[in-house]
Amino acid sequence: MSERSRKTRLRHFIHRVWNQGDADSAATYLAPTYRIRHDPGDPWNGMTLDLAGFKARVIRLRAAFPDQHFDIQGLYADGDTVVMTWLWNATHLGDLPDFPATGHTIEMSGATAYGFDRSDMLTGHWQVTDRLGVYQQLQRNKLSPRPDPP
Amino acid sequence: MSERSRKTRLRHFIHRVWNQGDADSAATYLAPTYRIRHDPGDPWNGMTLDLAGFKARVIRLRAAFPDQHFDIQGLYADGDTVVMTWLWNATHLGDLPDFPATGHTIEMSGATAYGFDRSDMLTGHWQVTDRLGVYQQLQRNKLSPRPDPP
Repeated sequence: MSERSRKTRLRHFIHRVWNQGDADSAATYLAPTYRIRHDPGDPWNGMTLDLAGFKARVIRLRAAFPDQHFDIQGLYADGDTVVMTWLWNATHLGDLPDFPATGHTIEMSGATAYGFDRSDMLTGHWQVTDRLGVYQQLQRNKLSPRPDPP
Repeated sequence: MSERSRKTRLRHFIHRVWNQGDADSAATYLAPTYRIRHDPGDPWNGMTLDLAGFKARVIRLRAAFPDQHFDIQGLYADGDTVVMTWLWNATHLGDLPDFPATGHTIEMSGATAYGFDRSDMLTGHWQVTDRLGVYQQLQRNKLSPRPDPP
């Protein structure tokens, strides 16, 4: 498959699995094992997940932010990797440890290098996200728990 | 120039300018203007720098961490962009606001998408770094200001 097709495939994966929350559709995109090679602060950092484990990850990470949306900024394909730079936003609708839901919008940015195998299935990722930016927003929102009027 | 040559050129830029601290050598690698398109927490986020401005940035960012070292994890070239994933470490030898020097080692990771022009000069970057990881290390080190014995 061409690098262009892998980019399209990655777009569909992000849209269906992470934006729409269709965890079952991960089966269409994932290799038998998916390795989280580097992802500071992620509960699964360093782990290798099977399909069931990956679905559990999707469900858990979306629970506090059910309307989350990844806005892809760039896709860069080279060798067996497609790197995605992204912005993310979501309404904080579910409780997190120390941070009850506020209904405020949270924004984040990050970059993720996705690995593909020869069947164009995803084998894992190396990711960095701006966790401090999220933490600062959660802290600020805690002090004004109700959204400002539109 | 090929994508492979751009990767080599980026390696040299990182080594000379950021690892060795030779700010003057930035002239070899930079387009007339260098735009910091996205870099949360960076003092120059959103700005366009000329060579003098870029040199000032290098000198300021290296001041607290004069032995800093970028360890390149991956380079991915596509179109006019080369994405670099990286680990970074440095000894905290200069004072930062709220964080006096401790002599402790600090580690960081990040991903940077570098733009090139047709003369293979760097036009800017889009970057995310794990700022929260750095902040947590600085906080922890503040409570034990002397390095552990080797």
